[in-house]
Amino acid sequence: MTQVLLEAGSLVLSADAVIPEPGYVLWQDGVILATGRGVYPGPRDGMEVVSRPRAVAIPGLVNTHGHAAMTLLRGIGDDLPLQAWLTERIYPAEAKLTGEAVYWGTLLACWEMIQSGTTCFTDMYFFMHDAARAVEESGLRGVLSWGMVGLDEQSRASGLGNSRAFFERWNGAADGRIRVTLGPHAPYTCPPDYLAQVADLSAALGAPVQIHLSETRREVEECLEQHGTTPIQLAERCGLLQRPVLAAHCVHLTEEDVALMRTRDVRVAHNPQSNLKLASGVAPVVKLLEAGITVGIGTDGAASNNNLDLFEELRLAATLHKGVLQDATAVTATEAFTMATASGARCVFGENGQGTLHPGAPADIVLLNLDSPHFLPTYDLLSNIVYAAGAGDVTDVFVAGRALLRNREPVTLDVERIRHEVRRLEARLRPGS
Amino acid sequence: MTQVLLEAGSLVLSADAVIPEPGYVLWQDGVILATGRGVYPGPRDGMEVVSRPRAVAIPGLVNTHGHAAMTLLRGIGDDLPLQAWLTERIYPAEAKLTGEAVYWGTLLACWEMIQSGTTCFTDMYFFMHDAARAVEESGLRGVLSWGMVGLDEQSRASGLGNSRAFFERWNGAADGRIRVTLGPHAPYTCPPDYLAQVADLSAALGAPVQIHLSETRREVEECLEQHGTTPIQLAERCGLLQRPVLAAHCVHLTEEDVALMRTRDVRVAHNPQSNLKLASGVAPVVKLLEAGITVGIGTDGAASNNNLDLFEELRLAATLHKGVLQDATAVTATEAFTMATASGARCVFGENGQGTLHPGAPADIVLLNLDSPHFLPTYDLLSNIVYAAGAGDVTDVFVAGRALLRNREPVTLDVERIRHEVRRLEARLRPGS
Repeated sequence: MTQVLLEAGSLVLSADAVIPEPGYVLWQDGVILATGRGVYPGPRDGMEVVSRPRAVAIPGLVNTHGHAAMTLLRGIGDDLPLQAWLTERIYPAEAKLTGEAVYWGTLLACWEMIQSGTTCFTDMYFFMHDAARAVEESGLRGVLSWGMVGLDEQSRASGLGNSRAFFERWNGAADGRIRVTLGPHAPYTCPPDYLAQVADLSAALGAPVQIHLSETRREVEECLEQHGTTPIQLAERCGLLQRPVLAAHCVHLTEEDVALMRTRDVRVAHNPQSNLKLASGVAPVVKLLEAGITVGIGTDGAASNNNLDLFEELRLAATLHKGVLQDATAVTATEAFTMATASGARCVFGENGQGTLHPGAPADIVLLNLDSPHFLPTYDLLSNIVYAAGAGDVTDVFVAGRALLRNREPVTLDVERIRHEVRRLEARLRPGS
Repeated sequence: MTQVLLEAGSLVLSADAVIPEPGYVLWQDGVILATGRGVYPGPRDGMEVVSRPRAVAIPGLVNTHGHAAMTLLRGIGDDLPLQAWLTERIYPAEAKLTGEAVYWGTLLACWEMIQSGTTCFTDMYFFMHDAARAVEESGLRGVLSWGMVGLDEQSRASGLGNSRAFFERWNGAADGRIRVTLGPHAPYTCPPDYLAQVADLSAALGAPVQIHLSETRREVEECLEQHGTTPIQLAERCGLLQRPVLAAHCVHLTEEDVALMRTRDVRVAHNPQSNLKLASGVAPVVKLLEAGITVGIGTDGAASNNNLDLFEELRLAATLHKGVLQDATAVTATEAFTMATASGARCVFGENGQGTLHPGAPADIVLLNLDSPHFLPTYDLLSNIVYAAGAGDVTDVFVAGRALLRNREPVTLDVERIRHEVRRLEARLRPGS
C-alpha cells in the first residue's frame, strides 16, 4: 500500500513526547513507520502527502465505556431518580428497539465519535451483529460485547449463545478493527454461577471481559446483603477477575477492592460525567492511579451523558478530582491525556503502541485546529489540549491510516441518511407513542 | 432602522417557553418586537429576513464572572497548588502586562466568547480603558470593572480614582452595551475601611459592585481569624451588601451567610470548572437556589479554566451537583439553562428581559446547528442544549440585533490580527523570557 506522510504543525506522540513545532508522521498499511521533528528527511517518491501545518496531531482518543445505540435515547429522560429513569424511560424505549434501530443508533454514535476525535470505542448492548455492521462501515475501531443478563434460564442461555456466536462471527473482522469481548452486564443482573460460566467462556474463547462494577452505592449495599461481599470481590470469587477484565465505573470501592484490582490487573473505565449525571458519585481515581491500576475514560451511553464527546470527559477527569479532593495537583494534564489515549488502549486490550503515535502503533490519529482560540497562546501544548480545546477543534480523523473525517466532513458515513433514519426511529421511540 | 426577521427551526424563548418547531423572532433597533410559532403573520416589506431553518435560536449566554485578558495566561500554569500558581506563574506574567496587551487579550476573549455563544460578559481586571475599547469593537455586551486592591495608600487611591474615571468615561458607552461596575477584588485584598469607601463610591455613582467572596476555605478561615466573621458578613458590616452586589464563587458559606445573601439580594456567579481546577471545592448551588438567591454561571479567567466556553460550565453546573449530592434531580436542565441566561442577566443587573427572547428584550440571540449529532434525536430540546450540545454547534450570534458571528465566521473581529498580536505577546509573557 501507498505510504502516507502527514505533515503537522505540532505533534503529541504521547503525553510524555510532545513536539510543539512542525513534524511528521509516516505510515503504511495502517501502521506508523516513523515520526519526527521538522521535515521528513527521506525520499517522498510515491508517497501521499497530507499537509496540515495549522493542526496538531494527537493519538486518537479511546472511549472505554459505552452503549453506542443508546444515542437513540439521548434526552429521553433527565433529572430523574435512577429507578424512575430506568423503569419509566429507558426500559420502555429499549423494549421497542430492533436490530435495525441498533444499526442506525450505532451509526449515529460513530458519526458523533468521529466528529469529536474518538478512534476506538467499546460497546455493550444487544442486536450486536447490527452494531458490528455499523462499526465496520464507519471505519472506527470497536471493542464490542453482547450484553448478558442471567435473570432466568432463557436469558442465561441466549446470552452465552449470542456471545459465542458473535465472537466467532466478528472477532478480528474489518481488518482487525473489530474485537469481541464478553459483556456480563453486572453482578446485580448476573448471579455468581452465571458469572462463573462467563469466566469459563472467556477462557475457552480467549476473549476479555467488560462488566459494570460498583457503579452505585445501592448496588454495593445490596451485594453486601445478598452475597456478603462487594461486587469486586464477588467477581473474584466467581473466577472473573482471573480473566482480563475491563470494569466500568468502580465508583464505590473499599481498600480491599483496590488491592485486589491491582493484583488482578483489572482495568477501569472512568465515566466522570455519567457518574455525576446519574448521581452515582465520584470514582476514587487518584487512589486507583496511585495503586498503579490502568484507568481509561468513557462517556457511557448517550442516555446518561448526553453526548459522546471524550474531550469533555478528559477535561472533567482532570478537574473533578482536584475540586473534590481540594488538591490542585490531583490528576494532571499528563495523566488525563494518558487515560484518554495510551491507558485507554490498554483498557481495551489494544494493539501494540495503540494510543500513541510511536512507530509500530496503529495510525489512529486526530488533528486539532491550531487556529482555534483555544490554542492561543500555547505555553504548554498538552495543557491547551486537555484544559481548553474541544470536539469543535477536531478537523481530521484517521483510523488505521484511513481518513474518516476530512476538514470536518465525515468521509465514510452518509450523515443525511443517518439523520433521516434516526428521525424516523425517534417518532417510534418517543414516550407515549 | 430596518426590521430584521429571523426564521429559525426551533426557538427557546426562555427555559419555560420552548418552541420545538419552526418560528420567528422580529426585532428593530436592537430590541425584540415579536416572536411566535410558524410563519410571521404580518407584512415583510422592507424587512431583512435571516432564514435559518436548520438552527435553534436561544437567548445569548451571560458569563457572570471572568478576567477577559487572562486569556493571555491560558495554560501558563496548571496542576499547581494555588500559592505556587499565583506567585510563580500568574503574578510574574501579570507584572509584564500593558494596556496594549490587555487590549489584545480582551479581543481574544471576545473572539472566543462570540464563537461559543456568549453575548454578555463581566470583566474585572486592569488597564480597563483598553479592555473597554476591545469590547466596543467586538460588539459584545460588557459589564466591566476596574479591579481594586487596598493593600497600601497608593493602591487604594488609584483604585478609587481609576474606577471613578472609568465609570465616567465608559458607563453606557457603545450604545449602552458597556456598563461599568465597581470591582473591589476581595475582602482579603481590600480591608474593611476600604470596602466601606467602595460602598460609598458605589452609592455616589449608582454603580453596582462585583467582588470575589468566599472562594477558598483558607480565605474564610483567615477572615474569621482576622475579622472574627466570614467574608460575606464582613462585606455586610462594611455596607457593601446594601449595594447591588454580584459575588463570585461563594464556595464556602455558612447558613448565616446564605440567609444574609437572600435578605440583601446578593447575586452569585457560580464558576464550577474554575472552582474544581483551582481545588477550591464545589459551591452549594442547590442551597442557594432553594433560598431563592439569583445564581448565574461564569467561566472565571482562562488561566484557571482554561477556556471561556459557557456551554461547558452550564453542563457542569447541571451535572456536578447531582454527583456530589448523589441526587439525580439536583439542578435540572431548566435551572441550569436559566442560570446561564435569564438569571445571568439578573446577576449583571441587565436590561429588561435580557437573557430571554421575549418581546422587549435586547436581541441577543445565539443559533445552534440542529444538524449536529447532538440534536439527534430531540425528545426534549432543552435537554439536548444543556446536556449534549456545545460551543462547536454555535453558528450565529447577534447582540443588540447585530451579527457578530455568521455561519461560524466572526464578523466584527480581525482574527488573523488577534492571532498575530497574541503570538507576539506570548513570546514576551512566556515564563523565563
